[in-house]
Amino acid sequence: MQTDSSFTFVLFGGTGDLSMRKILPALYEAHRAGGMLADSGKIVAVARHIADRAAYIDWVNEHVKPHVSKNGVDETAWASFLDRIEFVKIDLGNPEDFTLLRDALSGRPGIRVFYLATGPSLFVPICRALASVGLNENSRIVLEKPLGYDLKSSNAINDAVGEIFAEEQIYRIDHYLGKEPVQNLLALRFGNVLFEPLWRREWVESIQITIAEELGVEARGDFYDNTGALRDMVQNHLLQLLSIVAMEPPHSMDSDSVRDEKLRVLRALKPIDPRDIGKVAVRGQYHAGVIRGSAVPAYATEPGVKPDSNTETFVAVKVEIENWRWAGVPFFLRTGKRLADRVAEIVVNFRAVPHSALGASALRGGANRLVIRLQPNETIRLYCLAKQPGEGMNLASVHLDLAFDRFFREGQMEAYQRLLLDVINGRLALFVRRDEQEAAWRWVEPILNEWATANKPPKPYAAGTWGPAAASAMLAQHGTCWLEEEN
Amino acid sequence: MQTDSSFTFVLFGGTGDLSMRKILPALYEAHRAGGMLADSGKIVAVARHIADRAAYIDWVNEHVKPHVSKNGVDETAWASFLDRIEFVKIDLGNPEDFTLLRDALSGRPGIRVFYLATGPSLFVPICRALASVGLNENSRIVLEKPLGYDLKSSNAINDAVGEIFAEEQIYRIDHYLGKEPVQNLLALRFGNVLFEPLWRREWVESIQITIAEELGVEARGDFYDNTGALRDMVQNHLLQLLSIVAMEPPHSMDSDSVRDEKLRVLRALKPIDPRDIGKVAVRGQYHAGVIRGSAVPAYATEPGVKPDSNTETFVAVKVEIENWRWAGVPFFLRTGKRLADRVAEIVVNFRAVPHSALGASALRGGANRLVIRLQPNETIRLYCLAKQPGEGMNLASVHLDLAFDRFFREGQMEAYQRLLLDVINGRLALFVRRDEQEAAWRWVEPILNEWATANKPPKPYAAGTWGPAAASAMLAQHGTCWLEEEN
Repeated sequence: MQTDSSFTFVLFGGTGDLSMRKILPALYEAHRAGGMLADSGKIVAVARHIADRAAYIDWVNEHVKPHVSKNGVDETAWASFLDRIEFVKIDLGNPEDFTLLRDALSGRPGIRVFYLATGPSLFVPICRALASVGLNENSRIVLEKPLGYDLKSSNAINDAVGEIFAEEQIYRIDHYLGKEPVQNLLALRFGNVLFEPLWRREWVESIQITIAEELGVEARGDFYDNTGALRDMVQNHLLQLLSIVAMEPPHSMDSDSVRDEKLRVLRALKPIDPRDIGKVAVRGQYHAGVIRGSAVPAYATEPGVKPDSNTETFVAVKVEIENWRWAGVPFFLRTGKRLADRVAEIVVNFRAVPHSALGASALRGGANRLVIRLQPNETIRLYCLAKQPGEGMNLASVHLDLAFDRFFREGQMEAYQRLLLDVINGRLALFVRRDEQEAAWRWVEPILNEWATANKPPKPYAAGTWGPAAASAMLAQHGTCWLEEEN
Repeated sequence: MQTDSSFTFVLFGGTGDLSMRKILPALYEAHRAGGMLADSGKIVAVARHIADRAAYIDWVNEHVKPHVSKNGVDETAWASFLDRIEFVKIDLGNPEDFTLLRDALSGRPGIRVFYLATGPSLFVPICRALASVGLNENSRIVLEKPLGYDLKSSNAINDAVGEIFAEEQIYRIDHYLGKEPVQNLLALRFGNVLFEPLWRREWVESIQITIAEELGVEARGDFYDNTGALRDMVQNHLLQLLSIVAMEPPHSMDSDSVRDEKLRVLRALKPIDPRDIGKVAVRGQYHAGVIRGSAVPAYATEPGVKPDSNTETFVAVKVEIENWRWAGVPFFLRTGKRLADRVAEIVVNFRAVPHSALGASALRGGANRLVIRLQPNETIRLYCLAKQPGEGMNLASVHLDLAFDRFFREGQMEAYQRLLLDVINGRLALFVRRDEQEAAWRWVEPILNEWATANKPPKPYAAGTWGPAAASAMLAQHGTCWLEEEN
């Protein structure tokens, strides 16, 4: 997609982890691909501990370059990419430093993007400082998670930011929404007549959404111990994916058509009765175990974690959607750290045929399923039964792969690259609107409250397993099980 | 599938073309595969011009062996296959010769199969001769097409055979029904929940069934000139395929459940009003042309063909089915000789999405189709739209292949092998019942009659093309076109 719109991309937290691993590499890729970024577009990095542009370029060469292009760096493109980068030294503790930024941005053409790759405690101070020098006009602001700790704190941030930026200027990023298979799920559902008629309670038995990590809390023990898996993953990523899977066909792909439909799903989530929590939600915490042959420590012994912590590192939860399309169809969400594999996928389990003329094998549940895998590889696979060659009518499971590389020479685009281009080009569809975020918090809060009130320890699970057995038992009550297979 | 049931397979026309190219090679393959034929099962060839078993074995070695096993002959299996073969010399003009056959079959265990690989004029005399020596008991009879010339002559044969054999002893063979993809179509439709809900007028726009040949009439000019494409291909193969595609889900796969459903389709075919024939049926006759770079002569100059022949070598016809599932959905059938390619396939064209949120490309008809190819290769392919990788939401056509060889080590089975094993094992589902045949003749007759009455020349088409332009014009009126693409 060609673009002529100039921009200035201001990166707060310019030396942070996210800038290093995701944001700057994604901008480099867009630059290298050509035609995606206006030639006049600039990146203005903001950081406190770097002296000047030369020092920042050194830092970028040292820390960012190793993260770009698995297939090696194009040195010419890299050099011209560095030419886009400018630098402003700001101590966020000194709001008056923002006059430096205002001066640096003065007279530039096109849109301004402020990417806040900082901790959430800085969101409001930065916004206020931007407003104080008039930079909130003709600009967009990108906010990373976590956007608050609960509904109240989330509202506090959104209120404060909302006083300075209008909702259509605010890009709340959820990088799962930028992944190619999520885009393709929309294309398959709404570009074909083959899936949408089946995409409903009559034909779908259950849906699973899993985001499993092998990593533990790494260096973030302190943060994580105050957060837990429900806030860190369910409230945002998992509910966002659920809303994309379950939404009604939108009128168009414009921002509010898509987000209105997602919102309708989030508002239709069946509220969880605190008395039922033991039945519909499982929380776990990993103990010491083995991942890929290496011993790993228990969560409670990780740096920054309280030894008697009750924070969950695993959540499995059954969600129901109270509308005509999905009534009675369980959506099972699951996420955790130190699990047996790193995988993110959506599994649509179709019902068995209502009557089998072909013998019992067709009456098994699970014979038909669509697996949209977001991680580690990005694929879409449709399982069905086919006749085994030869005599008789014996069915066996086969799968049809949407093998993108067979059809398309062009490679897939990283989620961050897509989302940053969307910000620059003013496309809000893949960003979370405030009302969506509120609806998600509202659904999650009774679980948070009940767990906090009960103050019971989470169920233990050994690192390197798929979490507590209770998570499987919950699905077994519905006659199904988690899909856990190698790809 | 293991079998313990012994059998004697009596092959009339034992030196005929069909025996040489299809029947004996299929029996050899079943023998070689092991476990499909009872060890005690025998083949008794019947012929007139062969002196004795030794001479017949010589003939088999010379003429049949080149037609078996594309991958080379297993000499051990071939030797033991020949051990199964016996021989009885019968002149069909001498009914008393059948006592030789009776004596040869006397005291044998298991079922008797009489395969009449002869011209249809011999069907009734052979049946009567078999009855005269009591061989119609505990036996099955296999009849090849053509079974009559019209409804009346078909009834005459069926009546006469029916006096001697009960309907459940009669196996009317249509080898298209034995092809693996046709079997798999049943497996996909009735073994999965993914297709059946879409398999109806709400979601299907039109269906095409094509059997195209590159060959001309070869040595059969005389026969063909008295037959024509409608009788030779439409009345049987094409209407049979149509009935399989369109039938309701059967209660089971037992013979009469399947055939009852096929019959319901054939009886629901919308009768053709003779006044509409010009609109719904196109007949053609090939002129001289070029096939794969070689000049080929006009039909009217083929040996055995009358120079002023009005016989059609091409038919395209629009069929409608008057029931709730298919009302208003056109089924386009087409067959011809000397066409541009040798291909047999069923194409299910799904409707466009009712509303596209993704731009105009999704509103094209034909974006979603299922292609079941029977010839030359046997594949099932599902076309749909997917998102092109990268920025934006641009759709492109991709296809999902049911790649049988990826999943199944065992090879596919030739149609004749499957059907012969079905006869030996008493499975009637894939054979044409008398009432089906009658219903098909009844639907075809008004066209035959109208063409005979009008006595107009068929539309000319050049050999090596896809037939007369009128066949394309007929589909254009429905906003569609024949699928003609390389695989």
